[in-house]
Amino acid sequence: MRDFSRDMSALALNTATLGHNVEGAGAGWSPERTIDACAERGYGGIVFWRREIGSRAAGIAAHARAAGLTVAGLCRAPFLVGPLAPRGRQAVMDDFHASIDMAAELGAPILTIVTGGVEPGTRGVAESLRLVADRVAEAAPYAAERDVRLALEPLNPVYGGNRSCLTTLRDALDICDALAAPNVGVAVDVYHVWWDTDLPRQLARAGGRILGHHLCDWLADTSDVLLDRGMMGDGVADLKTIRSAVEAAGYQGLCEVEIFSAGNWWKRDPAEVLDTIVTRFRSVC
Amino acid sequence: MRDFSRDMSALALNTATLGHNVEGAGAGWSPERTIDACAERGYGGIVFWRREIGSRAAGIAAHARAAGLTVAGLCRAPFLVGPLAPRGRQAVMDDFHASIDMAAELGAPILTIVTGGVEPGTRGVAESLRLVADRVAEAAPYAAERDVRLALEPLNPVYGGNRSCLTTLRDALDICDALAAPNVGVAVDVYHVWWDTDLPRQLARAGGRILGHHLCDWLADTSDVLLDRGMMGDGVADLKTIRSAVEAAGYQGLCEVEIFSAGNWWKRDPAEVLDTIVTRFRSVC
Repeated sequence: MRDFSRDMSALALNTATLGHNVEGAGAGWSPERTIDACAERGYGGIVFWRREIGSRAAGIAAHARAAGLTVAGLCRAPFLVGPLAPRGRQAVMDDFHASIDMAAELGAPILTIVTGGVEPGTRGVAESLRLVADRVAEAAPYAAERDVRLALEPLNPVYGGNRSCLTTLRDALDICDALAAPNVGVAVDVYHVWWDTDLPRQLARAGGRILGHHLCDWLADTSDVLLDRGMMGDGVADLKTIRSAVEAAGYQGLCEVEIFSAGNWWKRDPAEVLDTIVTRFRSVC
Repeated sequence: MRDFSRDMSALALNTATLGHNVEGAGAGWSPERTIDACAERGYGGIVFWRREIGSRAAGIAAHARAAGLTVAGLCRAPFLVGPLAPRGRQAVMDDFHASIDMAAELGAPILTIVTGGVEPGTRGVAESLRLVADRVAEAAPYAAERDVRLALEPLNPVYGGNRSCLTTLRDALDICDALAAPNVGVAVDVYHVWWDTDLPRQLARAGGRILGHHLCDWLADTSDVLLDRGMMGDGVADLKTIRSAVEAAGYQGLCEVEIFSAGNWWKRDPAEVLDTIVTRFRSVC
């Protein structure tokens, strides 16, 4: 297991930690300012959200490269199914392709997929998962041509209805198995999977298909399941045990800090947030 | 699979559906009035909460018997672990025994166990689940002497931190396997397990250890994960498919409607709620 107390090269910031995934949230730092602040502190990488990139992908990518920071990924493909997805298959696929194009232009090797919830008119998750597999299968060659890998991210089952019919690493790997596309894998976010006693077995099964590992914490008395994630060390997730299993499966990539926190961390000075992450990354992750 | 369109004998009301699990919620009907209203409509059983029983268990039980209604169960044992449990092992076990005593006095054959969350000072769920198993093992003979069976109820993983370190039927059955106590089994609540693609396999594994089946629905756009459960048919859970698997495993007992709904059903006339349940039970369950 890598020793993060001495080596920060694996630390990446997901800019949602500064509120950049939500219009009007956070301090409103530009991508460039965020890049510089991460580089100054020795972060190894950064992950952006589409809404902050807009049409400036090439410029932002160049700024990151010049600062010595890897653009590790892009959040995210549109919801592929469910009540919050674009309306109709063609609209979904058009936006899916647009997100792949942006990842390619940004030089981000990974595009995260949050599947969306239960497809209207159906019950349970089976039919929705089938649709997800179909749509990822269709987009995978398009992504491969652009050197983009697709990371299926299972979300906590609390989101099963509207945001993610994909709730376990088991189900994500079942889709990977069915597709057998070399550029489709999974993202393992501690917030979503910390409770799952089947996780060690599924991580071993995942092997080289782990494309991302996301860090935050689950607050025992969480007040909001979307926007009240905890800083590493403030919750009940067993971060070191999970990372140990992720690395035992072969993952040696960046560990991406992604904390949606409207009531706490988004209200603080981003400099303080970035400094706290460094401290926690070195001690409790 | 039983035909509920013609036979309501398997329908039971969990009185939380009328708000009786929370002080001051709902219309405040007495247990006796609730029993009579259920009996008039042909319900087969009823499940009470400790707070509404107080010291009147024998009288309430007699009233139910006279009305032809089975008292199917009691909610619930105290949290056994986690931040909301009584402080200290002895306090937990004392209240656990008191809840068993009340179930026995009420003639309720089943006491539901919600485990409680992650034990303070630990991370992940492993240590907490071990403590749960220890405490249930200790109480099981006491319950058996009083003809009370203990139903471990896994809760949606969103409650993992504070209310239930037990989040899947798989984990509940693992505890049952470890204990091998003939009066310890599981409760299957659609609200908590609807998303789990492993459910069919685990239900088959459960066999005769299924002690209860709880009905409500998961609203796709749920506004509160504790008190915004849906009426059967208003959400995305595949109720009939789940019941089919529950019955295929051998369960032929009561199906208990349990809808925590502070913003909707608890505000309505209980008579309307009970009538709506009958309609939905016969059509969508």
